[in-house]
Amino acid sequence: MRKTPVCVVGLGLIGGSLMRAAQAAGRDVFGYNRSVEGVEAARFDGYDATTRLDEALTRAAETGALIVLAVPVPALGLMLAHVRSTAPHCPLTDVTSVKGAVLEEVGRAGLLDRFVGGHPMTGTAQSGWTAGDARLFVDAPWVVSVDDHVDPEVWTEVTALALDCHAVVVPARSDEHDRAAATISHLPHLFAEALAATAGEVPLAFALAAGSFRDGTRVAATAPNLVRAMCEANADELLPVLDESLRLLTHARDQLAHHRSVAQLVEAGHSARARYDSFSRPDIVGIAVGAHGWRDELAAAGRAGGVIRSALPNRDSRG
Amino acid sequence: MRKTPVCVVGLGLIGGSLMRAAQAAGRDVFGYNRSVEGVEAARFDGYDATTRLDEALTRAAETGALIVLAVPVPALGLMLAHVRSTAPHCPLTDVTSVKGAVLEEVGRAGLLDRFVGGHPMTGTAQSGWTAGDARLFVDAPWVVSVDDHVDPEVWTEVTALALDCHAVVVPARSDEHDRAAATISHLPHLFAEALAATAGEVPLAFALAAGSFRDGTRVAATAPNLVRAMCEANADELLPVLDESLRLLTHARDQLAHHRSVAQLVEAGHSARARYDSFSRPDIVGIAVGAHGWRDELAAAGRAGGVIRSALPNRDSRG
Repeated sequence: MRKTPVCVVGLGLIGGSLMRAAQAAGRDVFGYNRSVEGVEAARFDGYDATTRLDEALTRAAETGALIVLAVPVPALGLMLAHVRSTAPHCPLTDVTSVKGAVLEEVGRAGLLDRFVGGHPMTGTAQSGWTAGDARLFVDAPWVVSVDDHVDPEVWTEVTALALDCHAVVVPARSDEHDRAAATISHLPHLFAEALAATAGEVPLAFALAAGSFRDGTRVAATAPNLVRAMCEANADELLPVLDESLRLLTHARDQLAHHRSVAQLVEAGHSARARYDSFSRPDIVGIAVGAHGWRDELAAAGRAGGVIRSALPNRDSRG
Repeated sequence: MRKTPVCVVGLGLIGGSLMRAAQAAGRDVFGYNRSVEGVEAARFDGYDATTRLDEALTRAAETGALIVLAVPVPALGLMLAHVRSTAPHCPLTDVTSVKGAVLEEVGRAGLLDRFVGGHPMTGTAQSGWTAGDARLFVDAPWVVSVDDHVDPEVWTEVTALALDCHAVVVPARSDEHDRAAATISHLPHLFAEALAATAGEVPLAFALAAGSFRDGTRVAATAPNLVRAMCEANADELLPVLDESLRLLTHARDQLAHHRSVAQLVEAGHSARARYDSFSRPDIVGIAVGAHGWRDELAAAGRAGGVIRSALPNRDSRG
């Protein structure tokens, strides 16, 4: 069976890597990039790229391509307006790290019924076409949304693309993705910044610093604009988990001041970390895409650590 | 010149390693341990150990040995009372991770004039004589206190022992050591516990967790009783740095809630981490132990990252 063509909108690190990986998997791939430099670099490497968005989207509409939005969040609205007018019936996904905000934009553009959000959880410090790599997604978790509106056929298309890129698919609701990303990525970044900034004011701290300080502040070396972009775009989900962690620390502070004990926080933290260390990643099996309750079942399986490493059956499959 | 003998009080991981390292450096070393098992294990390995504290301290007094207190903090008071009655004129040091509390105990025992606190910043997860290793201190920072009361001759003795163990000596005031240790070790532990505990309550968090979460929670895997012991023993210094970090995080939280910006915290953290990455460890030179203002000069040099890798001249040295 002929694989669905892919139209990549935005040929930066993620979009450019995806173009390479999908073509390596035997797909017809073509793409749009705003800058002439990016397009020329992609063409030089033998890829089919254009600076003309309407040309790319018209071709997507004609070939029934899966459109992948790989532009920064601020550019999404404009891209969606073009998709709406030129290729409204194509299956549509994105690769953005915040899923709730994208869902709202897509809803405003009236394109929800053909949209399934995605987030390949990988990256490097570099950016642009030349930083791309067909192997960027190998074994990386790639979240594919299972929100209530999601169409089984489009979901299967997006999952197939992620698997073609050799990622492992984690099915998740957009809101749960955003809350989890706030907890395991954005909050650790803020904690690292606070640790480093606190130590910066204490004489002798750097002179005695060793392993626990180096580990605890490693991500404070990330470029400030990247840290700001991800924390600020996910503010609605970051605030409640930041509040919860501040509540835990403030309680520990009071216990230490009044009872010279940090027992409660230390026991809770140690026990959670032990659960994380024993967390397993089983393959998700036995769920048919499109069958009754399939979205909730996939969300529950992803929450429990389950991943998809090869295509799931759909409700029409035999056996 | 004959090296000063060493009397090690407590033959656990640190005391036992110190006994091995000092003997390997050509010193006469003898020691006391409370448990028969520890003493028998040390003797089996060819070391001079006894369960009789008075015997060890009498011998220390007769030979003018440097006494090293290597017992847990709760046992210090009892040991100091014995030193006071049997060997009050011997040079005296310790290897405890909290320096202010030890200084107070030593002051109460009336032994300040012969005491210089020490803290070799190393260790393993194991404990007891059998876990010891003559090479435990190689290249490790070993803080030697330069508090106002410190006698130049005793300071030189303690530094010489640390250098015989192949450590690098960081001169520091006890209060500055404790504040720095709170900042670069105890605070990162509490942050790691809070991150892990927060994530433990968020569905999907463990499923998506990657590098920044793993790094940020690594030390939450430490045994809870060890984390509690170090945080609670240093509560007076830990509370102000915990308050400062909570102030930074709470301010960032309010900025994020009201202005959707974490710019201030992120810039401060990134800049502090960059300063840490470029922090150098120059050799301390040009300070004569016992010369006018030597303690303040050494404290300032240690604060600036300076370390001692070979014996400093004393005020009577020529040239």
